[in-house]
Amino acid sequence: MIHQPSVSVKQMPVKKVTRLTTVPSLDTLSVEEPLEIRIVFGPGTNRVQKVISVTMRTPGHDAELALGFLFTEGIISSYRDVVSVSRTGIPQQDNVVCIELAESFNPHLAQADRNFYMTSSCGLCGKKSIQSIKTVSAFNPQDKPSLSVSAKMLYTLPATLRVAQRVFAETGGIHASGLFTSEGDLVVLREDVGRHNALDKVVGNAIANNLLPLNRHILLLSGRASFELIQKAAMAGISVVAAIGAPSSLAVELAAEFDMTLLGFLRHDRFNIYTSSHHTLISTADK
Amino acid sequence: MIHQPSVSVKQMPVKKVTRLTTVPSLDTLSVEEPLEIRIVFGPGTNRVQKVISVTMRTPGHDAELALGFLFTEGIISSYRDVVSVSRTGIPQQDNVVCIELAESFNPHLAQADRNFYMTSSCGLCGKKSIQSIKTVSAFNPQDKPSLSVSAKMLYTLPATLRVAQRVFAETGGIHASGLFTSEGDLVVLREDVGRHNALDKVVGNAIANNLLPLNRHILLLSGRASFELIQKAAMAGISVVAAIGAPSSLAVELAAEFDMTLLGFLRHDRFNIYTSSHHTLISTADK
Repeated sequence: MIHQPSVSVKQMPVKKVTRLTTVPSLDTLSVEEPLEIRIVFGPGTNRVQKVISVTMRTPGHDAELALGFLFTEGIISSYRDVVSVSRTGIPQQDNVVCIELAESFNPHLAQADRNFYMTSSCGLCGKKSIQSIKTVSAFNPQDKPSLSVSAKMLYTLPATLRVAQRVFAETGGIHASGLFTSEGDLVVLREDVGRHNALDKVVGNAIANNLLPLNRHILLLSGRASFELIQKAAMAGISVVAAIGAPSSLAVELAAEFDMTLLGFLRHDRFNIYTSSHHTLISTADK
Repeated sequence: MIHQPSVSVKQMPVKKVTRLTTVPSLDTLSVEEPLEIRIVFGPGTNRVQKVISVTMRTPGHDAELALGFLFTEGIISSYRDVVSVSRTGIPQQDNVVCIELAESFNPHLAQADRNFYMTSSCGLCGKKSIQSIKTVSAFNPQDKPSLSVSAKMLYTLPATLRVAQRVFAETGGIHASGLFTSEGDLVVLREDVGRHNALDKVVGNAIANNLLPLNRHILLLSGRASFELIQKAAMAGISVVAAIGAPSSLAVELAAEFDMTLLGFLRHDRFNIYTSSHHTLISTADK
């Protein structure tokens, strides 16, 4: 992993207005800056550099973000395809990450277009989008180990995430994704102004640590569970996703299709089960 | 405007787990489905149909969404460019909206690429992104009427939005954008699983009602203020944006560049002023 400058928050002047006073002050804001993700690929004499995406993100863990993005979008399917991850080395290009791919590897560039999932199978409906994701996923949803998860442990996750969310405490303006073991231990937490980026950073970290597929882990989302987040989780082989917020209808349908357990509105004493994987047992007895 | 089928929420089975019980129930979820936005353009014998975008959205007000998207992305710059807005008429293509443009009008297709704002001016930093938005905006940020806004009125906006947010009350899983007069009257409220879609629907509604530029209005965002939302607001000429949540650093910088007033953390008794337009007076005396 390359060195990450930590500029994820920024102090800015603000006037704080209440019913009684207007006070000039300094406020800590989440930084949002564009990140350009490039890949270098092709055989020796024919290496090509290509811009894959520009995403608005909170700086920090950019290499993980780029790696996770390439993986969850289906452009690469293994860390073995990656030769190096680097900045361009050009001053004032802190917002560029370049991923060099193996000469023998042919990146799946059709997937680089986010419209791909939705248009590739012609009929424009959620069901077709789900089917097209299944064709590009590296992991078979049916090929998962059994996992036992206790409700008691799940109740502890929101507090663990909150404590670990240093940036959130400062700015109140950022999303988080946390990867936990099935015993409730935090493996990695990542934050970003974009919820999809926070998840890509988590997946990128897991790839670099050779943890994929994440079928013995629990993913906790600090906000709502959208189709895009469940799609990225499915690409990483995640079995159990818990969200502090609500899921969308299509998120539930995608989770069901991938035999994923999807929990919503997780609190210290309650949650909703939207879908249950055949491979996951949630023990809800209060002990 | 075309007929809008109202399928923005969906009942789905759920198990509600608490410390004491697990109860099968029905939950109301926000629907998320892809919408394909197409345009038809070019001279008589040479009409071309082109897919501009596929966005995951909550169904409802799709025509407004498509219209607002084309405008806030800079592809069209006036309602006069639009001949008709329609569904394709093909069964099972409820998720397609087609906008027919005037024969004489040449759509700004370079802008259709969301990467445009960030890469077009070479150096990949927020400052350049802001500059490139300025070049495509139809309204001059300096050409605004004076606007007087009272803190007392601002304090009432969150409650007004909440009451009007029918879908939110049901699902807890949706973003809202509300357009208000400077006296605090709600003009239009739109909701969506995607916050950018909720704003595009509001702008699309305003276009169809010939309200642009929205330089005498106040835009209220139910969540955080990101760069993308301020960019869309700037394209619609909005002078005052208030967010219930936090702004990002780049959102503040963009608002300053567009001489926009940006308020954050708006509550019934307080808010933060991040940027103040030269054309807006906020009276904070408590009367």
